[in-house]
Amino acid sequence: MQAALDAFVEHGFHGTSMRDIARRAGTAVSHSYYYFASKGELLRTLMVRVTEDLLRELDHAATSADPVDRLAALVRAHVLFHTERQAESFVGNSELRSLAPDERTAIVALRDRVSDHFKTAIDDGIQQDRFTAARRDEAVLAVATMCTAVAGWYRADGSRTPHEIADAYAALILNMLRPE
Amino acid sequence: MQAALDAFVEHGFHGTSMRDIARRAGTAVSHSYYYFASKGELLRTLMVRVTEDLLRELDHAATSADPVDRLAALVRAHVLFHTERQAESFVGNSELRSLAPDERTAIVALRDRVSDHFKTAIDDGIQQDRFTAARRDEAVLAVATMCTAVAGWYRADGSRTPHEIADAYAALILNMLRPE
Repeated sequence: MQAALDAFVEHGFHGTSMRDIARRAGTAVSHSYYYFASKGELLRTLMVRVTEDLLRELDHAATSADPVDRLAALVRAHVLFHTERQAESFVGNSELRSLAPDERTAIVALRDRVSDHFKTAIDDGIQQDRFTAARRDEAVLAVATMCTAVAGWYRADGSRTPHEIADAYAALILNMLRPE
Repeated sequence: MQAALDAFVEHGFHGTSMRDIARRAGTAVSHSYYYFASKGELLRTLMVRVTEDLLRELDHAATSADPVDRLAALVRAHVLFHTERQAESFVGNSELRSLAPDERTAIVALRDRVSDHFKTAIDDGIQQDRFTAARRDEAVLAVATMCTAVAGWYRADGSRTPHEIADAYAALILNMLRPE
């Protein structure tokens, strides 16, 4: 799976063959097919795993009854995850279209649960007048996409630590949702 | 170029051959090579064109001396462009890694100019105490990535028009940058 991930990052799913993956893993092609019925099955497995792990982090973060605290914790956990699991997150976002429709179903369902965490925290905050109710749908999309995009630009040798970036994003997002 | 764009959206750059592109365009492979020396040259041309067009839109939008008005106009123009030129924007963002380093140079330079529009408007706003100075670098990245990501989720048959989305994003971003 690590060999497949490296190959997908470098050449994309369609630019990678099971032969390439086997070569990187130092094993025979037949051996790879023993574990994964197809290259699509390998990609699907990678994507399910990373999305389940993200969801577990968000479940752990979403403990506060206070919607402002909860949203901040969700944003921090989401951003940290996308710096720690950068390659998998990047492949997960760029290659969803490479899966067959029936292979996508499980991942789309998991992603809906990720998105529901943000939606619920934002809606709870709106209900308590802690967040503005204006532009709610766009706010949900803006929050999810800006946090996900961190996997695209984060550099381990950059000037900010993952925790600093996570804190900055939480503050930016709480500002964005402040009642007007 | 339209045939190449359609193929890249559907199968990715590495999953597409010059033969596929020629077939879609209803022409001979030799004819395609007459215009483009390689598949990479085709991708590079597509990406330069879409980034130059985006830059032209932002140049036209960035007329106000007032940094708040200017940033709002830039965000609106950027979001509208990413709904109108959705396929090219998506390929431009997902396939930059598919270009050889020397093919990337021109595009990275153009993108820096796109990013400079946002940076300058935000810095001018900070200098006039219209925007918060906290988290400036993360704010620049958050603004650019959330606007770019619209190309990933926008649906022409969705409940919001491009102009409504553009207005909502401008308002969200101005809120995000309000002095605390």
